[in-house]
Amino acid sequence: MAKELTSKSENYSQWYNDLVVKADLAENSAVRGCMVIKPYGYAIWEKMQAELDRMFKETGHVNAYFPLFIPKSFFSKEADHVEGFAKECAVVTHYRLKNDPDGNGVVVDPAAKLEEELIVRPTSETIIWNTYKNWIQSWRDLPILCNQWANVVRWEMRTRLFLRTAEFLWQEGHTAHATKEEAIEETFKMVNVYADFAENFMAMPVIKGHKSENERFAGALDTLTIEALMQDGKALQSGTSHFLGQNFAKAFDVQFANKEGKLDYVWATSWGVSTRLMGALVMAHSDDNGLVLPPKLAPFQVVIVPIYKNDEQLAAISVKANEIVAKLKAKGISVKFDNNDAKKPGWKFAEYELKGVPVRLAMGPRDLENGTVEVARRDLLTKEVVNIDGIDQYVDNLLEIIQQTIYKKAFDYRTEHTTNVDTWDEFKEVLANKGGFISAHWDGTRETEQLIKDETKATIRCIPLDAVEEEGKCVYSGKPSNKRVLFAVAY
Amino acid sequence: MAKELTSKSENYSQWYNDLVVKADLAENSAVRGCMVIKPYGYAIWEKMQAELDRMFKETGHVNAYFPLFIPKSFFSKEADHVEGFAKECAVVTHYRLKNDPDGNGVVVDPAAKLEEELIVRPTSETIIWNTYKNWIQSWRDLPILCNQWANVVRWEMRTRLFLRTAEFLWQEGHTAHATKEEAIEETFKMVNVYADFAENFMAMPVIKGHKSENERFAGALDTLTIEALMQDGKALQSGTSHFLGQNFAKAFDVQFANKEGKLDYVWATSWGVSTRLMGALVMAHSDDNGLVLPPKLAPFQVVIVPIYKNDEQLAAISVKANEIVAKLKAKGISVKFDNNDAKKPGWKFAEYELKGVPVRLAMGPRDLENGTVEVARRDLLTKEVVNIDGIDQYVDNLLEIIQQTIYKKAFDYRTEHTTNVDTWDEFKEVLANKGGFISAHWDGTRETEQLIKDETKATIRCIPLDAVEEEGKCVYSGKPSNKRVLFAVAY
Repeated sequence: MAKELTSKSENYSQWYNDLVVKADLAENSAVRGCMVIKPYGYAIWEKMQAELDRMFKETGHVNAYFPLFIPKSFFSKEADHVEGFAKECAVVTHYRLKNDPDGNGVVVDPAAKLEEELIVRPTSETIIWNTYKNWIQSWRDLPILCNQWANVVRWEMRTRLFLRTAEFLWQEGHTAHATKEEAIEETFKMVNVYADFAENFMAMPVIKGHKSENERFAGALDTLTIEALMQDGKALQSGTSHFLGQNFAKAFDVQFANKEGKLDYVWATSWGVSTRLMGALVMAHSDDNGLVLPPKLAPFQVVIVPIYKNDEQLAAISVKANEIVAKLKAKGISVKFDNNDAKKPGWKFAEYELKGVPVRLAMGPRDLENGTVEVARRDLLTKEVVNIDGIDQYVDNLLEIIQQTIYKKAFDYRTEHTTNVDTWDEFKEVLANKGGFISAHWDGTRETEQLIKDETKATIRCIPLDAVEEEGKCVYSGKPSNKRVLFAVAY
Repeated sequence: MAKELTSKSENYSQWYNDLVVKADLAENSAVRGCMVIKPYGYAIWEKMQAELDRMFKETGHVNAYFPLFIPKSFFSKEADHVEGFAKECAVVTHYRLKNDPDGNGVVVDPAAKLEEELIVRPTSETIIWNTYKNWIQSWRDLPILCNQWANVVRWEMRTRLFLRTAEFLWQEGHTAHATKEEAIEETFKMVNVYADFAENFMAMPVIKGHKSENERFAGALDTLTIEALMQDGKALQSGTSHFLGQNFAKAFDVQFANKEGKLDYVWATSWGVSTRLMGALVMAHSDDNGLVLPPKLAPFQVVIVPIYKNDEQLAAISVKANEIVAKLKAKGISVKFDNNDAKKPGWKFAEYELKGVPVRLAMGPRDLENGTVEVARRDLLTKEVVNIDGIDQYVDNLLEIIQQTIYKKAFDYRTEHTTNVDTWDEFKEVLANKGGFISAHWDGTRETEQLIKDETKATIRCIPLDAVEEEGKCVYSGKPSNKRVLFAVAY
């Protein structure tokens, strides 16, 4: 191996950190909790952005940009929101530095103190609803369907690359509607977009459901979520869509004249996914050799590695390789021909395994003679020798097969690690020895959820949208329940 | 007119502000100096980003993301840089708020004071070179060709939408090279990319040149710039590309082993354009009726407005209009069919003029009978009746013609407003009565440039790359000079 990884079984957490750094996805920066997203990692994020952006626009949304800073007083306007977001945040108090009179570089200029402190946005509901107030007078101005791609800051004490960082990149949709029904419909529409993206692009199966009251977004009446299962049996919340009711409209006094000419408060939703998805992507599929990337999000889908002993051989292979490159590109497949002479084929094989390139083609002198090429799949680590004629069609099909195989593997893992549990002893036993999702009855109270969390660290990941009505008893309190909910230990 | 604009001749500055707000490009926010970029404005910016990003990638660059925050001490490491950038900036001093003991919302928690203050990036050379230190050991690690799309903050006291805002969006390229020659080549390559973009997409002619020492980027050995002329005769710096020498490598101790195995400092460039280009785009082309957008950057290039008296007429027109929409889309032309019944055609005409949609098609019952459509050009405000057969090809050609016409108009304006001047009296006279670029001899000293600025507000916009060697005398000091430079009053 070019760069040794800790094995998953030995230390999953260390394996993840090693992989993120060694596969050149991201690294820690000189600023506590802030990461550098490296070019290879950023290229994956750009692919995610492009697909999501297309999906948002297809569902009628437009992009806009709102200020990075939020006046401190805005947070106090919505009671729940201030509790959830105004605490651990970056506070701007001054707007100027000056030369240190003692000659030690620069110091904060005390004369440049802001009258009101500015908060670096942890989320933008407040500044956006303060803006919407000026955009909305009548029902004709609705709906407003804005999205923003932005950076946000939440001062987390314990950070992990992609999963929990002080600064992260995300998108936040903020919509305004004339009716409650329309806002609720939007909330569901966007959680479905997220699920579609997770399953069909990230190859990551997700459960759609409602958050319990404990886990709801600060200021929301309902939070919908997509929950995925990682390979260590822990759940990862991957995207959320919030029905905000009229809370923010009331906090910022955003009223509109409805069709009957009466004033009413506007209905709101917000929804977001972040660079956390990068962490989910890594943890959902990768193995001890490195990343396993679904072809639809791989920065390049195919790499061609020449095997040669001298310049003539390289020249002859290059001719064929460039033909293949042209054919693959014509099919919309991204491909890299790595003819770097400074690295040996073995090094390249390990490097592209580490980087998760879905398909590797290797060509040596014998392949040239026989009109063949060796095709290796990253997902299964299998190889076969394939006729060079029609290789473009072969690879095109193979990429689709790999996309499906990766999904199926994750789906099967989740199925195996989702356990129906009916007693508290079994709950604890499954959680301790098997992990994964536990489907169990719950009495619907915050108190019981908190007690379960205190005892086991498991939380209610969601109340699945497709939960079946079923009489039962709460696995903890024994009180009646009419449906099962999903528990897990979560990231 | 749907929304009255101040006329350009009456008050150019007010015309600009009116236009930016009324055409829904941007507006001021609740946060001093920070703007909201509205969906229509952001759609133009997205088009700019997409083209620039494609050009950067075609020239071998990759995107990455570096932290929003920079430790205060980093700024002191490069002597010139700290003077230029560490003064007017947003300073984060605390990381937590708490409930006000007096019950007035939230207050800064004094216990959560940062050991070292963080600066919201005004530009990222320092944090990036601190990162590159870990990426670079040998010549094999070079070049590094990274770009970042990001928000930055400079605490400007007097702000104007797009032209000068506390927060703005931009891209910043930061490259690292093994040799001086390669870094200089990169600096020129990128100013050429910017000029290509300005001229071929924004339809805005620019002069490429070197900045004088006074106007150079803080920390650069050479700054290349593209300078455009606005319709009020003032210049606007539209993009810059800096040769940074080894200044940042030395400040952050970034050395590499060269091919001979010796340690040397890395050579650097940085280059950027920002949402300021939005201001340039507006001011370069627009008129008293509103925006004039070059087709290559218009969010939609064609609008179709039906003229009808009843539902049957609208239905018949819609059939034809939808055929045209399909044909135009097949040619890659973006088009909107505005069948909104709540607005009159006259209102729509004014609205799309204000928004700068390059081509408007209008169809009424008589057009249906005759198989015609009325085609209006936004740039010249002319109309003609055109046969509906082949309308797609006609519009396709027309969009190209409009792109060229807008460019030529700006080019001709610039030619007319570029004056060779050889005496100080003439210099002042031209500046006062005609404006524009003044091409004049200069003795090459900072002092003379400053005296000219103090007396006239004009600065050296650039020393053009294509300046001809020519003996002359400085227009101000009378000292010898061997080429003309470009002066103007600038935004």
